[in-house]
Amino acid sequence: MDYRSLFNEALKNEPFPAHPEGLYEPIRYTLEGGGKRVRPVLLLTAAGIYGASPEEAMPAAMAIETYHNSTLLHDDLMDRADLRHAKETVWKKWGTNTAVLSGDTMLMLALRKLQECRCERQQEIARLFIDTIIEICEGQQMDMNFETQKADETAISEYLEMIRLKTSVLVACAAKAGGMIAGADEEDCNLLYAFAEKVGLAFQLQDDMLDVWGDASVFGKANGGDIACGKKTYPLLTAVSLATGEDRKALLADIDERKAPEAERISRVTAIYDRLGVRKLCEQAVSAYYDEARAFYNLLPLPDERKSPLWQWAEALLGRKR
Amino acid sequence: MDYRSLFNEALKNEPFPAHPEGLYEPIRYTLEGGGKRVRPVLLLTAAGIYGASPEEAMPAAMAIETYHNSTLLHDDLMDRADLRHAKETVWKKWGTNTAVLSGDTMLMLALRKLQECRCERQQEIARLFIDTIIEICEGQQMDMNFETQKADETAISEYLEMIRLKTSVLVACAAKAGGMIAGADEEDCNLLYAFAEKVGLAFQLQDDMLDVWGDASVFGKANGGDIACGKKTYPLLTAVSLATGEDRKALLADIDERKAPEAERISRVTAIYDRLGVRKLCEQAVSAYYDEARAFYNLLPLPDERKSPLWQWAEALLGRKR
Repeated sequence: MDYRSLFNEALKNEPFPAHPEGLYEPIRYTLEGGGKRVRPVLLLTAAGIYGASPEEAMPAAMAIETYHNSTLLHDDLMDRADLRHAKETVWKKWGTNTAVLSGDTMLMLALRKLQECRCERQQEIARLFIDTIIEICEGQQMDMNFETQKADETAISEYLEMIRLKTSVLVACAAKAGGMIAGADEEDCNLLYAFAEKVGLAFQLQDDMLDVWGDASVFGKANGGDIACGKKTYPLLTAVSLATGEDRKALLADIDERKAPEAERISRVTAIYDRLGVRKLCEQAVSAYYDEARAFYNLLPLPDERKSPLWQWAEALLGRKR
Repeated sequence: MDYRSLFNEALKNEPFPAHPEGLYEPIRYTLEGGGKRVRPVLLLTAAGIYGASPEEAMPAAMAIETYHNSTLLHDDLMDRADLRHAKETVWKKWGTNTAVLSGDTMLMLALRKLQECRCERQQEIARLFIDTIIEICEGQQMDMNFETQKADETAISEYLEMIRLKTSVLVACAAKAGGMIAGADEEDCNLLYAFAEKVGLAFQLQDDMLDVWGDASVFGKANGGDIACGKKTYPLLTAVSLATGEDRKALLADIDERKAPEAERISRVTAIYDRLGVRKLCEQAVSAYYDEARAFYNLLPLPDERKSPLWQWAEALLGRKR
């Protein structure tokens, strides 16, 4: 059975407390909501290539997915998002207070689950986990700060640091924790971390690109959503760093002031992206992270046939074969 | 220097991260907001009577106070409370999203601080801490459920379980963790827990009574606030369990429907309490918990002169000498 199915099986058998129902129902609802299980699958994969069984690594895998879902619960509240995986979000369905409290509880259930992981480095793993969660909160705060910043006040380097904190450190933590559980050497654990961090960055930049140039029929939503709401993304900040004259004026007005109708703004900004060659630059940035990830992967001192599941995980996430 | 001053000193010297400012400023603001430092003082006291220095116990003391303050941050948001210690609450000052995210971060800072506690039973203490936080979330959910329940649907036993979870288990955790840090025997640690749990229950019932019969000039707010908002409290549920005929009808209407003017409801419900002898019954319940706490204290196998600071803590909290 593949790791994702194994994980979903384990989740189904996870005994959540029943009482008080109002607290635990939203937690079950969120965890059963699906998702690709990117992080637990990575953790199980990293543990597996270093010789740990799925059983040994499962508590940490459950912990990381439970934590990740708790952030969705609080993030959806902060973003006032109505839907997640085509289901109503918790705050929308049960209200703000339930979203706050069930999210808090879920975070603690994740940490409790992590303690079931009976390996030598349990305490170190807990420390990694806690440090990672604090970094993610910092990333979320940076993202919130960006909302009120003007487009030309936001540096690309700051944006990259924000997505590293908000997105990449958790996949990096998953990979490293997997290695730690399996008793891999410190150096290997750090390579696993660096590998996954770069994959996470490539993934997030790809996601930014999909919003502009993705196949809307596959992607399931219309192009230009990020442009419409004036979000600072890699394509946008790249364009701002290059645009001059009328293009620059139009770009900043369409992102910061957003007075023109939405469709007009989306097509004007996309046209500016095209004139400036932004798509190509984004692709190059993704490729650079992809190559860095591959380089860290190559450094892992394991035979190819043993470590290949890790690269397959990256390819499945980034959706391409080379 | 007394434990409270020592604790405040340590807090002042605690290096919080500076960046992002929007995340950490509300955390510092909340922690510096004051309060009686009931839980860290108890933890330091329990550790002290078993021979641990304040330095050894300080990380756990900081952790428990940081955690406690993170709950205030989220509770004030859920209750839409405007003021705390005469200062604007975080959600009121910085908005909902800041309250959610800074509260999450603060919770994790508490757990990170706990890991600095370098004692043998560190992992067990972390487990106690996490289990306690989950219980507190359950208590908070029960309290939220009570808001939409009718007064005669709420059992006194359920109410007592709610306040045990919402209030008592954290002081109990503080006392037990103090003992654990100092290397006290398991049995002593359990006595410390039981002692503090009963003190916590006595304290909460006293708090319920103060709202009705407290000296408003000392207490700093008008009497009857709980009655005015139809809150289920120990006096109310005691009265509901005893009232018959017209008194019962009036009581349920004033609490559940709240149609009459506030002042009228407060004076009518208070008069019913007085007719039914509710104050006496509350005092008896407080005394019973007080006596139970004293019995557990007496069982602690330490000479009186060594353990007396623990009882002094209870007396300071409950504000009485016998």
